[in-house]
Amino acid sequence: MLVLGVDPGTATTGYGVVDYIKGKEQLITYGTIRTSADLPMQLRLLKIHQEFNHLLDEYQPEAVAIEELFHHKNAKTVISVAQSRGVLLMATAARGLELAEYTPLQVKQAVSGYGNADKRQVQIMVQKILRMEQVARPDDAADALAIAICHIHSYRMTRLSKGGIKR
Amino acid sequence: MLVLGVDPGTATTGYGVVDYIKGKEQLITYGTIRTSADLPMQLRLLKIHQEFNHLLDEYQPEAVAIEELFHHKNAKTVISVAQSRGVLLMATAARGLELAEYTPLQVKQAVSGYGNADKRQVQIMVQKILRMEQVARPDDAADALAIAICHIHSYRMTRLSKGGIKR
Repeated sequence: MLVLGVDPGTATTGYGVVDYIKGKEQLITYGTIRTSADLPMQLRLLKIHQEFNHLLDEYQPEAVAIEELFHHKNAKTVISVAQSRGVLLMATAARGLELAEYTPLQVKQAVSGYGNADKRQVQIMVQKILRMEQVARPDDAADALAIAICHIHSYRMTRLSKGGIKR
Repeated sequence: MLVLGVDPGTATTGYGVVDYIKGKEQLITYGTIRTSADLPMQLRLLKIHQEFNHLLDEYQPEAVAIEELFHHKNAKTVISVAQSRGVLLMATAARGLELAEYTPLQVKQAVSGYGNADKRQVQIMVQKILRMEQVARPDDAADALAIAICHIHSYRMTRLSKGGIKR
């Protein structure tokens, strides 16, 4: 169960690839796609598209997980984040990959066990779950790993539920 | 000077292709890309990407013109419009085409001569400029034609200015 989590943006799109093998989350890689503010927006979106496709080629994830975007959050950047998000959603569909969307609350609950966890607490839980020596940096990459873990937990719950072990 | 104007949306993306030949705007085609609300968002964005690419293949425009998107406008739909817009911008860049962006005020002024024109007045001016028997329908297609005309006017002004005829 190989999952690519993404945290879209224009300057920085975080990504994290997590596998789920023998009952354990396994960190594969994480990082960011960066674009320069000196480039026109359409060329920044093209670069995001190209690098996201490279990630899909290289890691061959079975699913892409992304946070839902809400209008009231980050009013100043919502348009540029949504433009980048549109490119990522389209590229995911073009590969026929499963796309999973989660609210920020769902991600926090899945990773830390409660919805009121702050950013730092979520990052420390991501570090523990993936048995990393340090907290993932930058924040966008750590967020992307949290989203990937959220999808793995959600997938496990669904399987358990279907298997009749837990309803 | 063949221009493709687009008015992005998720359910309906309007488009209009206008040429500028021998000092006259010439209507080539107009219409809409439509996607069903029954489809998941990523498949709707994929369909928009595919049909937009078909338009670029079929009409081979030299430039794509689009309205700037502002956060305060259409707060409810701004995310889905921006996601669709991101796909269109990226696809334009992928072809190496010129992209031109105009504010709604610039479009109104270019088409009707003044910034306070209402939607209906702009549509009637588009009809006159393109010598159409009726006003273009639906609104999204008429808006896309207005954006294409705006780019042609802007291009003409730039040429006149460069030629020293008008500063």
